[in-house]
Amino acid sequence: MLIDEMIVTPIALIDPPLLNAAGLHAPYALRVIVELHTDNGLYGLGEVPGGQDVAEALTAVRSVVIGSDPFHYNVLHRAIGAKVVQADGPRGDFPWDLRIVTLVRSAVEVACLDLIGKQTERPLVDLLGGKFRDSVPFSAYLFYKYEGAGGALGFGVDKNANGWSAARQAAALDPAGVVAQTKAMVDAFGFQSIKLKGGVFSPDQEVAAMFALRDAFGADVPLRLDPNALWSVETAIKAGRQLDGVLEYYEDPVRGQQAMADVRRAVKLPLATNMCTTSFADMPGSLTLGSEDIILSDHHAWGGVMASVHLAKMCEVFGRGLSMHSNSHAGISLAAMVHLAAAVPNLTYACDTHYPWQSEDVIVGGQIQIKDGAVKVPDKPGLGVELDRAELARLHKQYVDSGLTRRDDAVEMKKVDPTWAFKPTRW
Amino acid sequence: MLIDEMIVTPIALIDPPLLNAAGLHAPYALRVIVELHTDNGLYGLGEVPGGQDVAEALTAVRSVVIGSDPFHYNVLHRAIGAKVVQADGPRGDFPWDLRIVTLVRSAVEVACLDLIGKQTERPLVDLLGGKFRDSVPFSAYLFYKYEGAGGALGFGVDKNANGWSAARQAAALDPAGVVAQTKAMVDAFGFQSIKLKGGVFSPDQEVAAMFALRDAFGADVPLRLDPNALWSVETAIKAGRQLDGVLEYYEDPVRGQQAMADVRRAVKLPLATNMCTTSFADMPGSLTLGSEDIILSDHHAWGGVMASVHLAKMCEVFGRGLSMHSNSHAGISLAAMVHLAAAVPNLTYACDTHYPWQSEDVIVGGQIQIKDGAVKVPDKPGLGVELDRAELARLHKQYVDSGLTRRDDAVEMKKVDPTWAFKPTRW
Repeated sequence: MLIDEMIVTPIALIDPPLLNAAGLHAPYALRVIVELHTDNGLYGLGEVPGGQDVAEALTAVRSVVIGSDPFHYNVLHRAIGAKVVQADGPRGDFPWDLRIVTLVRSAVEVACLDLIGKQTERPLVDLLGGKFRDSVPFSAYLFYKYEGAGGALGFGVDKNANGWSAARQAAALDPAGVVAQTKAMVDAFGFQSIKLKGGVFSPDQEVAAMFALRDAFGADVPLRLDPNALWSVETAIKAGRQLDGVLEYYEDPVRGQQAMADVRRAVKLPLATNMCTTSFADMPGSLTLGSEDIILSDHHAWGGVMASVHLAKMCEVFGRGLSMHSNSHAGISLAAMVHLAAAVPNLTYACDTHYPWQSEDVIVGGQIQIKDGAVKVPDKPGLGVELDRAELARLHKQYVDSGLTRRDDAVEMKKVDPTWAFKPTRW
Repeated sequence: MLIDEMIVTPIALIDPPLLNAAGLHAPYALRVIVELHTDNGLYGLGEVPGGQDVAEALTAVRSVVIGSDPFHYNVLHRAIGAKVVQADGPRGDFPWDLRIVTLVRSAVEVACLDLIGKQTERPLVDLLGGKFRDSVPFSAYLFYKYEGAGGALGFGVDKNANGWSAARQAAALDPAGVVAQTKAMVDAFGFQSIKLKGGVFSPDQEVAAMFALRDAFGADVPLRLDPNALWSVETAIKAGRQLDGVLEYYEDPVRGQQAMADVRRAVKLPLATNMCTTSFADMPGSLTLGSEDIILSDHHAWGGVMASVHLAKMCEVFGRGLSMHSNSHAGISLAAMVHLAAAVPNLTYACDTHYPWQSEDVIVGGQIQIKDGAVKVPDKPGLGVELDRAELARLHKQYVDSGLTRRDDAVEMKKVDPTWAFKPTRW
């Protein structure tokens, strides 16, 4: 089985106007879909965040991918590293991580694993030693947001929407709005953990939102707050002490391993990260400084599913809890996340997913169902999802028509507030 | 594909009278062979050190292994842990490592991987992401020894032996003997690295042996000395300074991570270990203390091939070199070692193997060939070796007839010197 074709397709998915530390989500979230076809008639799928840069980088490695055996994905990892012109630099200051070589490796590796699963007639989880759970729990992932549906409607709303679709379009700009959004999302999907993306309004308002969620859902529902590294150590310690006993974990209140370690020593809450310890190169510093209690895995940002399995083992060995990070994504990414999470015994926290914020998908049958806050581990070969080529074409046209080529939430934010500017530390 | 039978067979392989820190090899080395049979007519093989205890522990987990899917080996790892009566304790003071739960897991996992490879018609290395090398280099593994063939001949020699077989039976009790042994082994197998098992004679004599090897083979041939943790820190520092520029690495001169770290700070030679950092539980201490530069992997002692892949990644991430440890073994173990070593990009040292000291095997076709100091990575499905059931039966009978049930090199040593006693630190 050799790869004889690699097709790279950037797509745009309608995304509502969600607020975060770096601004405001554009009307479309950009993803890149990779198809690897083989000489025995199979195809495998990968999905990563990114627009033009990532699509070009993936296209640039076609010559090393085509002709390869999908089973040899580790060897291909190295070949990709040798082919790319520029190695990944630091992660950067934004909530998202667009280190291109890492994303290229992840997309190719997941597509290879999908192919191996199809070839061996085994679900991907079985290529990782088997599943420790039949379904993977996710958390409700709440955002402050402006009213709006995203896509062509932008800040407009679809007047025919109902249920979660209507709630997804409603504004949520204060604690009451967050609670209403959460109730609608929990009603629709059955989530049993709740995460709020913070770093948007004043720390006092965001702390108040967490208390409002605690009051609305009770002390037994795990709550998380993620200020996306936008707070000072002083602010984070103050808020962390206020939230003692309220949060399950406190995600990236401050920027960098040293500041995280400083906050961690001063508060009782467990600290989680997907911003300060985000690659294997960061692991020694994490251990030396003690920068977090929990690492949010992400197979896109760590370079693949196998890299994430390694991360999981390191978390077990070095006393880190393990959860999972997400960006706006489609069903190929969700399937990979579910297989990975099912295969990792110590992934004991409900995973993040933006999936309820999306309403489109590239997979046959439309979006994967989230029921009782969890996704059933697919039992079909490979990822267990198939590509809907009509939807892929439509979503690619949507990408082209959108005029967007890369994520920049500041651009969108300035449309609302022309004076707005990103600050690495805001409060 | 479900496992419907598990056959556990202890065997004894003829082993010559090799000297080491804990005494003298018995006339037979004990191994346990595991066969897992499946309902679709396949069988998979595993091999681990150990006699009666290990065979009994393996037999005790039959009920959790039978009925399992070989693809679910990680889930099986956990089930085995839940089934065993007693968890593994510390590694112990001897050169060999007989932590039983770990050995049970390794034997079962390797047999599962062999089955997966056979089912998918892929060599084991392809289940690990593909091979980084087509053949795996091994080092010449030299021992001080008494004259003798082992087995029924014991300290006697086979007068018809020739070539390496004759040299294998010769005594090597001083530097000249070691050089003669090395020349014969290098001539026969083409090894390009040389390791001497020390901890037998005075440090001065062993240092002299390394200089004699350097003089005989030249400065370009990598040399290693392994006193098996028998030296004091003071002795190890003195010898390490004498051997500066002579050794490629200095393996376990002293006992424990703290003593290793003390020696490491005082000498320029890279320190290697398979005695102080021997499990994932030891990794935090290794990093905190800085106890070694190089870890000798061993899929038997770390709980399987996948565990060893994790170890390899940790070595890459935390700045440890990676080599491979061995005990007296047959071809099933060698095949697994070769697949593992081929799949790990950072396994950059020639691996250890006792294989030239053995003359019997349980695999069809007899012993695997070592040529130019390396073993070609098998390209047949799974491990790429088949079980010779007649030889298995004969070697099992040899086990029963030997009367040996567990390794105890002190027993053998006392037959030579009744006053001999093991000391954790001798010099």
